[in-house]
Amino acid sequence: MRRTSFAEWPCSIARSVDLLGDWWTPLVLREAFYGTRRFDDFERVLGIGRNVLTQRLGRLVEEGVLEKVPYQQRPVRHEYLLTEKGTDLFPVLAALSAWGDRWLAPAGPPVVLHHRACDHDTRAVVVCEHCLAPLTLDDVTATPGPGLPEKHRAAALATGRLAPPGGGDSRHAER
Amino acid sequence: MRRTSFAEWPCSIARSVDLLGDWWTPLVLREAFYGTRRFDDFERVLGIGRNVLTQRLGRLVEEGVLEKVPYQQRPVRHEYLLTEKGTDLFPVLAALSAWGDRWLAPAGPPVVLHHRACDHDTRAVVVCEHCLAPLTLDDVTATPGPGLPEKHRAAALATGRLAPPGGGDSRHAER
Repeated sequence: MRRTSFAEWPCSIARSVDLLGDWWTPLVLREAFYGTRRFDDFERVLGIGRNVLTQRLGRLVEEGVLEKVPYQQRPVRHEYLLTEKGTDLFPVLAALSAWGDRWLAPAGPPVVLHHRACDHDTRAVVVCEHCLAPLTLDDVTATPGPGLPEKHRAAALATGRLAPPGGGDSRHAER
Repeated sequence: MRRTSFAEWPCSIARSVDLLGDWWTPLVLREAFYGTRRFDDFERVLGIGRNVLTQRLGRLVEEGVLEKVPYQQRPVRHEYLLTEKGTDLFPVLAALSAWGDRWLAPAGPPVVLHHRACDHDTRAVVVCEHCLAPLTLDDVTATPGPGLPEKHRAAALATGRLAPPGGGDSRHAER
């Protein structure tokens, strides 16, 4: 069954979810972050069906998240390497994982990230790029950006889903 | 078709994805973050089918991400409020959205977050909780945590998918 496509919605969550939002794709990426590169290795560590894996890897290559590169010539064999776009998803999955560690891991985190740069075991924290304070729902107001088509903009402002630029009143502000 | 359940995997990405990883759930959450509370409002703003919406909201209530609270008595009507567990997903979706803004939004971000605490338009950045430097794949080593069952731990160390605790050698370190 073909699902609704969110790729064209003027929303970066919808577009990202369109790319990532099936059950296997984030786990394929997790393996790529762990260093897995070859089809048979993805298949083995994930216990994923070959058809599904072929489809997911194909989609990630098509979207520029992975790159398919030959590593041998006779017969030709490929491996799947993370692109910059793919590597840039690591922090997102680290943030997701930190949430899962907090709320879904009663026995403690299955995996701990060690930050070699500062030599501490760490957790991912999502912060404001300006003041570096943790970003929480209560402290932000969502406003229309340049990529929002005018008709969506008008509707979102009229219904109060988004606040006018500048961070004035909004439903968020009134919480 | 019932999919594989990842809820029991010793991996916080797998468990989180089991809860969030379908196309609609993150968008239902996005609307909750925008202040939407009532079934009919979710239906209208998302253009989602009632059956699918009922199922997704039910799952989120069951998992403690949303709470179903009566707001009127005759007839009884409910609204869906974010719990602490649900509110805590906001930074994760903010990080996902920042990635989408960077890689999937050629016309610019559809939505801009204004951080009222510091009064700047901002983007979500994922950082190390210790040193507050951005967390990147090249700077972290994944090690087994207390929630990883022994057999998984041994296998992950043997295959080099995880490094020994303490941040020693690993495939990541050798990149």
